[in-house]
Amino acid sequence: MNKESADSITADEFTVAGFKAAGISCGIKKTGRKDLAIILSDSPASVAGVFTTNRVKAAPVLIDMELVRSGKSSGVLVNSGNANACTGRKGYKDALQSVRATEDCLGLPKGCLLVASTGVIGVPMPIEKVCAGLPRLVEGLRPGGLHDASEAIMTTDAFAKRAFGRAKIAGKTITIAGIAKGAGMICPNMATMLAFFMTDANIKPVTLKKALLSAVDSSFNSIIVDNDTSTNDTALIFANGAAKGAEIKAASRDFKAFAALLTEVSLELSHKIVKDGEGATRFIEIDVRGASTPVEARQAARTIASSFLVKTAFFGGDPNWGRIMAALGYSGVRMDEKSVSIFFNNVCVARRGLDTGAEVLAAKAIKSKTVNVRVELKAGGHDAKVWTTDLSYDYVKINSAYRT
Amino acid sequence: MNKESADSITADEFTVAGFKAAGISCGIKKTGRKDLAIILSDSPASVAGVFTTNRVKAAPVLIDMELVRSGKSSGVLVNSGNANACTGRKGYKDALQSVRATEDCLGLPKGCLLVASTGVIGVPMPIEKVCAGLPRLVEGLRPGGLHDASEAIMTTDAFAKRAFGRAKIAGKTITIAGIAKGAGMICPNMATMLAFFMTDANIKPVTLKKALLSAVDSSFNSIIVDNDTSTNDTALIFANGAAKGAEIKAASRDFKAFAALLTEVSLELSHKIVKDGEGATRFIEIDVRGASTPVEARQAARTIASSFLVKTAFFGGDPNWGRIMAALGYSGVRMDEKSVSIFFNNVCVARRGLDTGAEVLAAKAIKSKTVNVRVELKAGGHDAKVWTTDLSYDYVKINSAYRT
Repeated sequence: MNKESADSITADEFTVAGFKAAGISCGIKKTGRKDLAIILSDSPASVAGVFTTNRVKAAPVLIDMELVRSGKSSGVLVNSGNANACTGRKGYKDALQSVRATEDCLGLPKGCLLVASTGVIGVPMPIEKVCAGLPRLVEGLRPGGLHDASEAIMTTDAFAKRAFGRAKIAGKTITIAGIAKGAGMICPNMATMLAFFMTDANIKPVTLKKALLSAVDSSFNSIIVDNDTSTNDTALIFANGAAKGAEIKAASRDFKAFAALLTEVSLELSHKIVKDGEGATRFIEIDVRGASTPVEARQAARTIASSFLVKTAFFGGDPNWGRIMAALGYSGVRMDEKSVSIFFNNVCVARRGLDTGAEVLAAKAIKSKTVNVRVELKAGGHDAKVWTTDLSYDYVKINSAYRT
Repeated sequence: MNKESADSITADEFTVAGFKAAGISCGIKKTGRKDLAIILSDSPASVAGVFTTNRVKAAPVLIDMELVRSGKSSGVLVNSGNANACTGRKGYKDALQSVRATEDCLGLPKGCLLVASTGVIGVPMPIEKVCAGLPRLVEGLRPGGLHDASEAIMTTDAFAKRAFGRAKIAGKTITIAGIAKGAGMICPNMATMLAFFMTDANIKPVTLKKALLSAVDSSFNSIIVDNDTSTNDTALIFANGAAKGAEIKAASRDFKAFAALLTEVSLELSHKIVKDGEGATRFIEIDVRGASTPVEARQAARTIASSFLVKTAFFGGDPNWGRIMAALGYSGVRMDEKSVSIFFNNVCVARRGLDTGAEVLAAKAIKSKTVNVRVELKAGGHDAKVWTTDLSYDYVKINSAYRT
């Protein structure tokens, strides 16, 4: 496995064989920034997706959930600036119309493109702007266009999120490229916000879905910025086989290698989302060890990562481990405070439930850009990691002023 | 029923027959503010309590849970500035020592006083300061001392919380006085933070507990500031029968009147806690109608009240109803967005899941100090109200700087 940093390669090198992409501004965003993207495979690709668990689902999510069942797709049209959620029957029609128009533009058969949206909820889609922009979008399609596409899917993101991985699998060099957007409304109940993966691997949809589920679980489903699960969360992967490798079969060594590569790329993207968390000043890893069950390990880590009080203490650089202990106490997991030890970047602040007096060292540790919070429960043999941000003035600023 | 405002009566009028109280500074708080209180009944009173559901319980909580079982108590010693939580065996001994010393000071038998603490977690109790302050505290005991006691239990509170109610019950005028503290770490999983009620009613402990549970459920358990359930939450009620009324028996008309009066007093205190919510600029009532079950009604209201995004939108005065719809969608309650209507102070912003175009009116409505958010689910016949705050810069400021 040879995961390169997507940030160290040029836009023209950020490509996957047999894929083209483009990103333009079509006027949905008042700022004039890019807001419309397309990713297209030269040939119909295997496709798999995971979607928000929110009962309120945006129109594009409803459409894609239906379409991915066929296991084949040629690509996806994405807009930012409008979520097309809580927009009723008109929103559904708008989303359908936009993909139909794109398919027409490209001379593709009906139903072979997917669609995704992100932005404000409850506002009708300016569908005429999307349709007017389509010819220019399609004209711009090129192998190096993924870079533009990654910018066109941003909303409150401070930077575009790209990740790139390459490995020799099934006798060929396989590439996986991923782009994602997300900075708020981030809570791990399914793929968080939008993430798109393109690969030239040869793999059937059902096997591809297995790899995607396992990658998403340990990456996108393990990050928390706030506790709000979006109406639009979508992760899609397209595999077009353009590397001309042998088929990657489930449970094979090749599958393991492919799934590992996809997980690496997913992890990089999901950590970038946390680093770009709205108002975030620190990247915090909640590292729970020794829970009774895997579910409890995850639950403990999530509860700590969700606590307003823990997150504001991190912002203030205050090694207030009592708030972590309190969060553990109401998390619902089995624990005995007398067994619990807590470390900030390896500085032990609480040992077997009691203060160690290491406050000065701990305060220094917690003021890093990256903080590892290790919680040893000693209640069993199960671990979990969750990544999160602190809660700052800027989080409040960004979200109290989002639409105004 | 004749609930008077505790704020419109003088300190000397804020009394209950047969109760004395006091509040002083003993040096736990570095600021020199009051930090030690006592409430004492002239004769052993019926007592009932509800406590935090957090698995991590402060030493005083553990002690009180044991002691209230007897159903009798003469009063409670309370300190602020230190929670005596996560302090191990020493914390437990410290708490016991402080009540024993108080009992000695007063010439009372062992085990007739309760104890409560609030403040920072994980720091050993300066027990010598408490013991040194006791003679002065006890000396200050007087009927009008509840006012001082209400100040001595404050931590980050901006104002002391007092409530007062009077009604003719069982042939006599019965008084209930309540004091409470709390501004952060507020989440409804049992009585929130500290609340103490004193009444001169004649009522057995088991009946008293019924009244307390019902009062707490619709007041303290229905408020949310952040989502953190404290290690120290405690609500205690003392009934000494000093009004010399007939016994208030369970399921009687008198009991109904008593429970209603206690609920009124609890509601007033709990709303004061929300109004003093850390950094709060608005008092928000989440008013869910038409859920499938009472549990789902409460769950929907709590999820909305807990959402970072909903709370920051309120702070910004942004009538962003999409965030409320999204919160409903991930709340887990049965709902269909096409049936849901949302109102801000009676301005309908979403009707049957769609925007009404009332944004300008709604923006005006939401900028009030008090906002009613009515959510009509049309999924059944059950309603619930939860009270909460917005999420402001000052919440972050207060909590990122709490100890430093």
